[in-house]
Amino acid sequence: MSPAETVIERIHALGQISDEPGHLTRTFCSPAMRRANDLVARWMVEAGMSVREDAIGNLIGRYPAKIPDAKTFLLGSHLDTVRRAGEFDGPLGVLIAIACVEQLHKSGLRLPFAIEVVAFSDEEGVRYQCAYLGSKVMAGKFHPADLKRADADGVSMAEAISTFGGNPARLKFSRANPKDILGYAEVHIEQGPVLEKKKFAVGIVTGIAGQTRCRIGFFGRAGHAGTTPMRLRKDALCAAAEFILGVERLAKRMRGMVATVGQIDASPGASNVIPAQVALTLDVRHRDDSRRHAADRSLKRMARRIARKRGVVANWEVIQDTGAVPCSPALSNLLAQAARNYQSKVLKLPSGAGHDAAVIASITQVAMLFVRCRGGVSHHPDESVTTADVRVALSVLNDFLQLLARRV
Amino acid sequence: MSPAETVIERIHALGQISDEPGHLTRTFCSPAMRRANDLVARWMVEAGMSVREDAIGNLIGRYPAKIPDAKTFLLGSHLDTVRRAGEFDGPLGVLIAIACVEQLHKSGLRLPFAIEVVAFSDEEGVRYQCAYLGSKVMAGKFHPADLKRADADGVSMAEAISTFGGNPARLKFSRANPKDILGYAEVHIEQGPVLEKKKFAVGIVTGIAGQTRCRIGFFGRAGHAGTTPMRLRKDALCAAAEFILGVERLAKRMRGMVATVGQIDASPGASNVIPAQVALTLDVRHRDDSRRHAADRSLKRMARRIARKRGVVANWEVIQDTGAVPCSPALSNLLAQAARNYQSKVLKLPSGAGHDAAVIASITQVAMLFVRCRGGVSHHPDESVTTADVRVALSVLNDFLQLLARRV
Repeated sequence: MSPAETVIERIHALGQISDEPGHLTRTFCSPAMRRANDLVARWMVEAGMSVREDAIGNLIGRYPAKIPDAKTFLLGSHLDTVRRAGEFDGPLGVLIAIACVEQLHKSGLRLPFAIEVVAFSDEEGVRYQCAYLGSKVMAGKFHPADLKRADADGVSMAEAISTFGGNPARLKFSRANPKDILGYAEVHIEQGPVLEKKKFAVGIVTGIAGQTRCRIGFFGRAGHAGTTPMRLRKDALCAAAEFILGVERLAKRMRGMVATVGQIDASPGASNVIPAQVALTLDVRHRDDSRRHAADRSLKRMARRIARKRGVVANWEVIQDTGAVPCSPALSNLLAQAARNYQSKVLKLPSGAGHDAAVIASITQVAMLFVRCRGGVSHHPDESVTTADVRVALSVLNDFLQLLARRV
Repeated sequence: MSPAETVIERIHALGQISDEPGHLTRTFCSPAMRRANDLVARWMVEAGMSVREDAIGNLIGRYPAKIPDAKTFLLGSHLDTVRRAGEFDGPLGVLIAIACVEQLHKSGLRLPFAIEVVAFSDEEGVRYQCAYLGSKVMAGKFHPADLKRADADGVSMAEAISTFGGNPARLKFSRANPKDILGYAEVHIEQGPVLEKKKFAVGIVTGIAGQTRCRIGFFGRAGHAGTTPMRLRKDALCAAAEFILGVERLAKRMRGMVATVGQIDASPGASNVIPAQVALTLDVRHRDDSRRHAADRSLKRMARRIARKRGVVANWEVIQDTGAVPCSPALSNLLAQAARNYQSKVLKLPSGAGHDAAVIASITQVAMLFVRCRGGVSHHPDESVTTADVRVALSVLNDFLQLLARRV
């Protein structure tokens, strides 16, 4: 069995480890996560690594350097999943990293830096509605107050960590020392359709987009659908519709911008009553924070203009504003150089979704390699990556480590 | 107390008669309807009428003609309400009609036709999700199969009618004989803002609009809001937004047209997921059926065009298509002539809402007088009509009957 085939086989094996029968749901510190960590630990050992688990349940396999006191390069991704997930989001990055180390180990090769493969215990944030718990602990960004959060069954995070075998009192000792770290690279499925559309197995991530989340309300006036002439209406849904199209128009005009209205609620919500109120969500992402903020301001002005013109009132509430995280040009160029051995052209693309790399970027330089996924589908059982593309990703990561070794 | 003040006082008295404490809810054949009919019957008797109740619970007060074997002119409206209703929708027409007869009676005047004031037992259709029960029985349009319908408590319509004191087996004997009927006139609140906007106490209804109700679906493709570039999206909500604005644009362009999207539902409905499906309702009304049908066709083509352009699928389901009912030009001209005694100008306007008159139009000529209501508000406790406007409406109806008497 080829290394790529082994990766796929292991992904299917992990896909069977779930907290919910018939579906793949594996949340932070759950019984399924325990079994997943134990299985992945075995593969790490087989790949020549010494294995430890830190206080938040991150599983870490270490492959020593050929010289003492060398720095450590981190490879990783996460093992937790969303509810009713696909098999590839997270595990792909962990298992390609292990396969990579396994090839070094089988060839008896050591590099001028140690490698640690990190399988983060929480990236999706499903259980505690609070994402990146694993990478936050490693980066020293964890808020101890979050330990008091309770899950749907009332189990506190501290309790869950203890049950899992971690130690909520010692989280700060699981923080990585930036001086010891050379960098971080993460392989991840794209979760979008660009690579498939452009026919590339892999792509280099330029950075992780910043994100604005808003809740917007339009307040008009209800009225009888049969008796209120068009000119005397203050239809909140028509105002919202104009706004939704304006969001789309602006995002299409700004390169690299995505903007989405995903939720909408019109009330009173009767077929024969003019909508008096509409609430909707807005999600704006761009890798350049200043452009994103300019778009936010422009959309807010647009909402007000539409409202004024229609005699309705617009309400604008920002509920999240997360800055963009650029990937390291140096590491990304090495990844691109490696990728050029397997693709005539190397596509660079931003990541619209958040990743562990965005958190780890606060302590070291990071790079990401995206792998094509069928139909751009993610967070769904249909998530799928071909063995051929895994082969490319694995080769690129191998070559990347060799290129990096020459630079250190 | 002036006759108009009496009407307002009686409307407030009826407003206290409810099936729901703290709100005005009076549904077909309920205990509150029993008390309402009994109270109105007393007022009818005081106004010089003989009173009967037909098999469906319509309360009918008869004021005889000055000659034997004369035809009967019907005046009326309904006494049932929507849930948590205002006081004026329905009772205003009944009480102005009674006040009108009372003035004739006090003056010792008889006309060359009998007058029957009909207080219909069901117009809103709240209890059995089936409207116009009272006028349908009078017009011979009642479907006996509806007697098996059950209300929210499982009480069949037949049972409710019997309990009320009606007779479900004798509904066909409550049918009016068109040969005996001279016509029907109904006073009703406008339930819209036109009269208030144009500063008129009353207006003459040209006809009751026909109505199309549709359920429309747009089927696109879900996707990650962060990772799916704008150009690769099939956003069902953007398609719906374009359609909603198109509906508004078309209705604004066609004189007398109203079109409303009142309900919208986008799924999966997460702020970070591109909407895959949107379901919405469409309500289109116009007094000219051919124009309404032309608008329906045009909107359907538009939905398909939008869908095709965006790579989504549009689904179109007509769930109701009710023809327009014109008011009698002869009766309406008499009403207008009467109104000219009180207003410099007489506004003619279509009714976008349905009324008992639309059903009675199948057996005789009908006319309607709209009375201004504050803010155009209806089906809400804030429903309000001034005593001054009631005075005008009462005078117009009185003069109308005198004008009619000269023609018969």
